[in-house]
Formats: sequence, C-alpha cells, structure tokens
Amino acid sequence: MRAEYINPFISSLINTFETMLGCPLTRGQLYLKTSGTHLHDVSGIIGLSGQAQGTVVLSLDKNVALQATATLLMCETTEINTDVVDAVGELTNMVAGSAKAQLTDYKLSISLPSVIKGAGHEVCFPSDVTPICVPFTCPWGNLKIEVGLAEVRTLVPGAGAATMAVV
Amino acid sequence: MRAEYINPFISSLINTFETMLGCPLTRGQLYLKTSGTHLHDVSGIIGLSGQAQGTVVLSLDKNVALQATATLLMCETTEINTDVVDAVGELTNMVAGSAKAQLTDYKLSISLPSVIKGAGHEVCFPSDVTPICVPFTCPWGNLKIEVGLAEVRTLVPGAGAATMAVV
Repeated sequence: MRAEYINPFISSLINTFETMLGCPLTRGQLYLKTSGTHLHDVSGIIGLSGQAQGTVVLSLDKNVALQATATLLMCETTEINTDVVDAVGELTNMVAGSAKAQLTDYKLSISLPSVIKGAGHEVCFPSDVTPICVPFTCPWGNLKIEVGLAEVRTLVPGAGAATMAVV
Repeated sequence: MRAEYINPFISSLINTFETMLGCPLTRGQLYLKTSGTHLHDVSGIIGLSGQAQGTVVLSLDKNVALQATATLLMCETTEINTDVVDAVGELTNMVAGSAKAQLTDYKLSISLPSVIKGAGHEVCFPSDVTPICVPFTCPWGNLKIEVGLAEVRTLVPGAGAATMAVV
C-alpha cells in the first residue's frame, strides 16, 4: 500500500470529528499493522472497491463512541446500543466517503458500514496487504484508523477481467 | 432486503465448501438478524457496492476454520494464525464473488476481505438494514452466513448523485 493513500483518510477523520462533533483530534505516529494488534471497544468497518480494493476500520474507545453518539444523534446512553452502532457506522461512512472524494483516480465505491463490538476483537487483513494505522487522542479518549488498500490494474489492456493487486 | 438476494449466497457457500473443501453442508432455517446475535470464533467480512450496497459475513467455528485451512492451504495448525486468516478471507471472497456473478443486474463489486477474531465478537448492521442469517452444520462444526444488502436507486433520472437505499 502506498503511504500517500492514507492522507485523505487522516484529513477526513480530523475534519469529520471537528465539523460534525466539535471534537479536536491529536494525531499520533502512524505505523504498519502487525498481527496481534487489538482494537478499541467498538469499530466501524467499510469496504472500498473500484480501481483499488480495500477496507477502512475506525476503532473507538467506548467513551468516544458514547460521546460521539450523544453529539451526533442527541441521545445519551451508557451502553453500546443500536444508536451507538448507527452513529459509529455513520462516522465511518463519512470518513470513507470524504476520503473517496479525494481519491478520484481510483473510482472508488463504498459498501455499507458494519460495526463490530466485543472485548478484544481484532480485524485481520489478508497477509499480502499491510494496513497503515494512525492513532489519535481526543478529550473523550482514544481512537485509531486502519486502512488497507491494494491498487488493482488490468495486466493486459483489452484482455478482459484479468487483474492483479499491486500492494 | 429482498429475500431472493440471499439465494445466490446460500448456493455459493454450499458449492464453495463442496468443490474447494470436499465438505458437505447441511442448511438450517434462515432468520432475520436481531441485535445481540453472537458470531462463531472467526468471521470473514466483505463489502459489496454498486447498484446495491451491502456486507457479507461468513462466521465459522474455530474447528471449521482450522480444517478448512488444512484442506485449502495444506497446512495444519491449532491456532487462528495468518494462514487461517488468509483461508477464511479467501473462502469469503469466493462466496461473495460467486454470488456477485449471479446478481449481475446490480453490477456489484467487492472489497478486500477482512477477518475478525475475538471471543464473542458481533457484527452489527445499520438499523435500517435487517440482514438475513442462514446457519449451517458440517462434519467439522457449525458456521453461518449473514447478508445485509440494500438496493440503491436514483430518485430522479438525470438529477445526478441523489440516491436512496431501498431496504
């Protein structure tokens, strides 16, 4: 995965939290994901396809998810319920949608967001894809984004569906 | 979600297990997913986009994942390691790819597969999407598939990007 792919996702996440939630993010050091990296309490996941194929995971501390839900949907809750699932899914959708708009060369389309919960859950990528992770802190707690994206190109122009992933 | 969407996924899963793994599946009763349905030990997830948007989750007992890995990649293991992640991701990819080929009207494209592990993990869908779940048994253990798919249509022809999900 080319490092420049990550920048639209970083800027989209910072902008989404600032404009939609009024919540400033402080960015940590990005790193390549190795197996065994656990996520936070609740994670939104969305698939990307087009001239590149990939996955975006937005993982939040429980408190970040609850505060984001309270701000976005104006409903207070103490548990990860369907409102929180909807809010985290919608935040993931906004970040992926905004990043997609900055990666026009790849004609990306995005899937429905899903939300994963469960203590110590982990999202693993195929071994030929090394996702880039960026941790953030905010007044509500910690969060991070993981993006694994592989460029897809036609090997022989006009030869039909033969494609390969360029990682 | 229209019930007929699920049939290509069911037939693709049965065919994939029979042809790639030599493993016959026995299908249980399909049901609509309600919040709080826990998955098996390891789950492959893949996003669908195009004229419909959705997510496919293939969730396997640990033993089903280990035996499938041993058969597909010819490597024995007792833990959910990178080989198992690759095998479960590839099985999910085959099922989604084969189902996509039967749903040509929707011009679907599929994302990279991701694999989720973690005791008691759960994949939640947006509240306006009700996924259909189908449980299966096989000589290696239990598995199930969950498919949430929402048709996307242009509201006003020629009006540009305005779309809505028809669930």
